[in-house]
Amino acid sequence: MTDPDDALARVFAHLAAGEERALARLIEYLRHPSISAQNVGIAEVAALLVRLLRDIGLQAETVPTANHPMVLARWDGAPGAPTVLLYGHYDVQPPDPLDAWISPPFTPTIRDGRLYARGAGDNKGQHFAQILAIEAHLAVHGRLPCNVVLLLEGEEEIGSPHIAEFVGTHRDRLRADLAITADGPLHPSGRPTVIFGVRGVASFELRARGAARDLHSGNFGGVAPNPLWRLVHLLATMKAPDGTITIDGLHDAVIPPTNAERAAAAELPLDLDALRRELGLSELDAPAGRPFYERLMFHPTLTINGMHGGYAGPGSKTVLPHEAFVKCDIRLVRAQTPADVLAKVAAHVARHAPDVEFVPMHGMEPSRTPMDSPFAAPIRTAIIAAHATAPLLFPSLGGSLPDYVFTRILGIPAFVVPYANADEANHAPNENIRLDCFFAGIRTGAALLSHLGRAAPASG
Amino acid sequence: MTDPDDALARVFAHLAAGEERALARLIEYLRHPSISAQNVGIAEVAALLVRLLRDIGLQAETVPTANHPMVLARWDGAPGAPTVLLYGHYDVQPPDPLDAWISPPFTPTIRDGRLYARGAGDNKGQHFAQILAIEAHLAVHGRLPCNVVLLLEGEEEIGSPHIAEFVGTHRDRLRADLAITADGPLHPSGRPTVIFGVRGVASFELRARGAARDLHSGNFGGVAPNPLWRLVHLLATMKAPDGTITIDGLHDAVIPPTNAERAAAAELPLDLDALRRELGLSELDAPAGRPFYERLMFHPTLTINGMHGGYAGPGSKTVLPHEAFVKCDIRLVRAQTPADVLAKVAAHVARHAPDVEFVPMHGMEPSRTPMDSPFAAPIRTAIIAAHATAPLLFPSLGGSLPDYVFTRILGIPAFVVPYANADEANHAPNENIRLDCFFAGIRTGAALLSHLGRAAPASG
Repeated sequence: MTDPDDALARVFAHLAAGEERALARLIEYLRHPSISAQNVGIAEVAALLVRLLRDIGLQAETVPTANHPMVLARWDGAPGAPTVLLYGHYDVQPPDPLDAWISPPFTPTIRDGRLYARGAGDNKGQHFAQILAIEAHLAVHGRLPCNVVLLLEGEEEIGSPHIAEFVGTHRDRLRADLAITADGPLHPSGRPTVIFGVRGVASFELRARGAARDLHSGNFGGVAPNPLWRLVHLLATMKAPDGTITIDGLHDAVIPPTNAERAAAAELPLDLDALRRELGLSELDAPAGRPFYERLMFHPTLTINGMHGGYAGPGSKTVLPHEAFVKCDIRLVRAQTPADVLAKVAAHVARHAPDVEFVPMHGMEPSRTPMDSPFAAPIRTAIIAAHATAPLLFPSLGGSLPDYVFTRILGIPAFVVPYANADEANHAPNENIRLDCFFAGIRTGAALLSHLGRAAPASG
Repeated sequence: MTDPDDALARVFAHLAAGEERALARLIEYLRHPSISAQNVGIAEVAALLVRLLRDIGLQAETVPTANHPMVLARWDGAPGAPTVLLYGHYDVQPPDPLDAWISPPFTPTIRDGRLYARGAGDNKGQHFAQILAIEAHLAVHGRLPCNVVLLLEGEEEIGSPHIAEFVGTHRDRLRADLAITADGPLHPSGRPTVIFGVRGVASFELRARGAARDLHSGNFGGVAPNPLWRLVHLLATMKAPDGTITIDGLHDAVIPPTNAERAAAAELPLDLDALRRELGLSELDAPAGRPFYERLMFHPTLTINGMHGGYAGPGSKTVLPHEAFVKCDIRLVRAQTPADVLAKVAAHVARHAPDVEFVPMHGMEPSRTPMDSPFAAPIRTAIIAAHATAPLLFPSLGGSLPDYVFTRILGIPAFVVPYANADEANHAPNENIRLDCFFAGIRTGAALLSHLGRAAPASG
C-alpha cells in the first residue's frame, strides 16, 4: 500500500495543476441561481449536483422533503476505514438589493483575487471545494481514503425546517463516524479554524395588555395598569442587573465547560481594544470579569430583541398605553434544549405575571463535540497539511447552526471547518470567496479524507 | 339696597326670557374659527371679543404675548366687594378629521337639544355663558355684584406656553381675590362640580445606547450591552411592582391630603364595576387597596407613555439592538414642582445608570385650593341656585391645567366650575354643548357673581 503522505502529495500536485480548471467549474456552478426563499432554480441545481456526483463516481440521488429536496451521495469503497458525513447546502440567499452589486450576483466575476457571486462563500464555493477534493482522490488513486456520505441541503437559508426530520428518518442511509461542515469564515487573521460546537437558541414573545384602549395618563394614571410597567417588572425578574439570568430553573441543564474547553477558549486570539473601538463600546456587558470567549461559548444569554408599546413620536404625549410586547431570544449551551427552556420561561411567566401572554417561537438545540474526540487530531493534522499553519480550536460558536442533528440525532461528533474568507459578505451584496481560500479549501478537503482514512472508525 | 336674592331672581328672569337670543349669539360666535395651532382667525376673534366686552360695559383690550394675544377685560365698580378673575380661552382645537363631522365644525347646528360646533364646549360656549351672565347683571341692574377681571387666552389648546409669564408680568392688572375657570365637563350624572385642584405633570425621556450598530444576538449576546435591558433595569429602580415610586427623594415635597380632602374624595360617586367593564379591566393598578379617587388626586404616578427599541416585526429576529428609548410622565401632587421632580429623576438616573441620557420635557405645576377657602361656600350656594342641586366637590382632578398661575403666581384660590355636558366631545369631531347646560351655565355665572358679591374680599 502506498504511503498515505505520498498519496496525499500526489493529490495536492494534481490539484495544483488543475486550479484554473477548478475555478472555471466553480464559475459555471455559480451561474445557476438556487434561491430557496423564492423557489428559484432549486430543482435544476439539485439535478445538476446529482449528475456531477455520479460523473465523478459516487452513488447520488435527490431525496424529497416536504419542500426542497436533499442531495445525498455516498462512496463506500473503504471497508474498515471511518465514514465521514460531509454537510453543505446548495441553496443561496436572495441577492437583493441588486443595485448594490458591482457585478451581477449570478454572473461570477473575478476582481482582485476574489470571485464575486451569490453563493461564492455561502455555501456553493465551500461544498464545491469538498466535491473537487473527492474527485481529485478518485482521479489520482481510483479510490478514497475513507468512506463518504455527502449531504447537501436545499433549505438552509430558510432555517433548515426539515433537516431534523430528514436526518431522523434516514438515520441508516446517513450512518457515519463523524460529520464535517465546511461553512462560515476563517478567522479574520486568515488562520483556519475548527469549531466543536454551537449555542442553541429559543425565541419567545411576551404580550401584556392593560385597558381596552389607550387612556389619558392624568385621568387614569394610578388607576389602569400599564402593560409596559408589567413587562418591565416581569423582565426584571428574569435577569438581574449583574447579568445573572434569574428565570427559575433555567441553568438546571447547563453542563459547565471542561478544562480542555476553557483552556482552548483562553488560547484564542483577541484584540479587545480593537473590538471595543469597532463596536463603539466602553465596556462589555454584565457580568464584569467574565472572559470574552466564555461569554459566547459557555453561558446562556437572554437578549431582548425588541420591545414596543405606546407613543413613539417626537416630544411627549401623556398617554397610558393599552398593550405592549417584548421579543427575546435565549442562546442555549450544552445540554439545554429549547423545549425545556421554553417550558421554564412559560412557568416563570405564569408564576410572576399570569396575565402576560407567553408565545413560544423558534428554537434550535445547542451542540458540542468533545475536544478530545478521536477525530480532532486527524482534522487538525489535515488542516496543517493544507494550510501549513495550525487551526484555531473553537469549543463553540456564539451563534446557532443545526449541528445537533449530527450530535444528538445521529450521535456522532460534528465539526465545522470553514473554507471562506472572513469578509466573504455572506447574505450581503458582493458576496465573494478569495481564490486562495477556495484552493486551500479543496486541499483541506483532500487532506481531511486522507487523514480521516488513517483513523479508526468510532465503531471499530 | 335691593335684597340680593331678589336681584338674582330678576337676572334669572331676564335670562329665561332671552334664551333664544342668547343661543343665536353663541351660534354667531362659533361661526368664527380661532384655531391657535394653525393661527387661523385668532386676531379676528380676539378683536370681536374686545368689541363685545366694550359694548356690554367692560374695559377691554387685547394684550400681546410672544404669540397669540390675551383678551383682558375688567369691571371695577363694586368697591369693597371681592374681585373674581374669570378665566377661559378663545382658541379651539383643529377640527380634523373633517369628514367625521355630521355638520361642518364652523357651521353651528342644533340637533336633539345640542349645539354642534368646534368650540361649543371647549371653551367658547362656556366663557360666552360667563360673558352673557355679566351682561345680564349689567342690563338688569346697571352694575355687577362684585368686581370682575376677565382673562381669555388664545393659546390654551397649544399648551398655554405664555400664560405663566403673562400672569407674572401683569400681576397688578390681574389682582383678584379668587379665580374661576369654566371649562371641562359636568359629572357624567349631570351633577355640577367644583374642582379645587389639579395634578401637575413632568415629562421626560430616557435614551440608552449600546454598540454602534445592531448586532447578531448569537455573535454578540453576552458581549455587547443591550440598551433595552439597561432601560428595564433602570426603570425597575424607579417603581416597584407594588406600585411604589422609588425615585430617590421623589415624595419629599408631597403634602398629604387634609382630612377634609380625603373625606370629600370618599363622598364622590363611583361605579367601579361599570368602569371596570368599560375599560376591560379585571383589577386596578397597584397598589391594591388604595381608594379610587385617592389614586387620582393625592398620589404622584409614574406612567410609561412609550418604550421602543429593536425588532418590531412579525415572528422572531435574533438581533441585539443598539439603541432604545422610553418616554414617561410623572403626575405631581401638592407641593411637588416639575423643576424639583425632574432634578430628582436626573439625579436618580445619574446614580443608577450614568450612561443613560436623561431628557427633561414638558412640565406643569400642580395646584390645590383649600376646601375650606372662604369662597367655597358662596360658590356652592351659587351652583345650587342655578342648578337646584348641590355640586360634587373634587379636591383635585387627575389631569393637569395651569391653575398654578392663579394659586402659585397670583397667590389666590382657584376653582374650576364646568358648564359643559360630560359627552361634549372636546378635541373630537362633533363637539357639542347641550342647550340646557349652556343656559344653566349662564345662570351659574350670574349666581356666582351674585353670591361672591355677598362675600368678604380675601384682602378685606
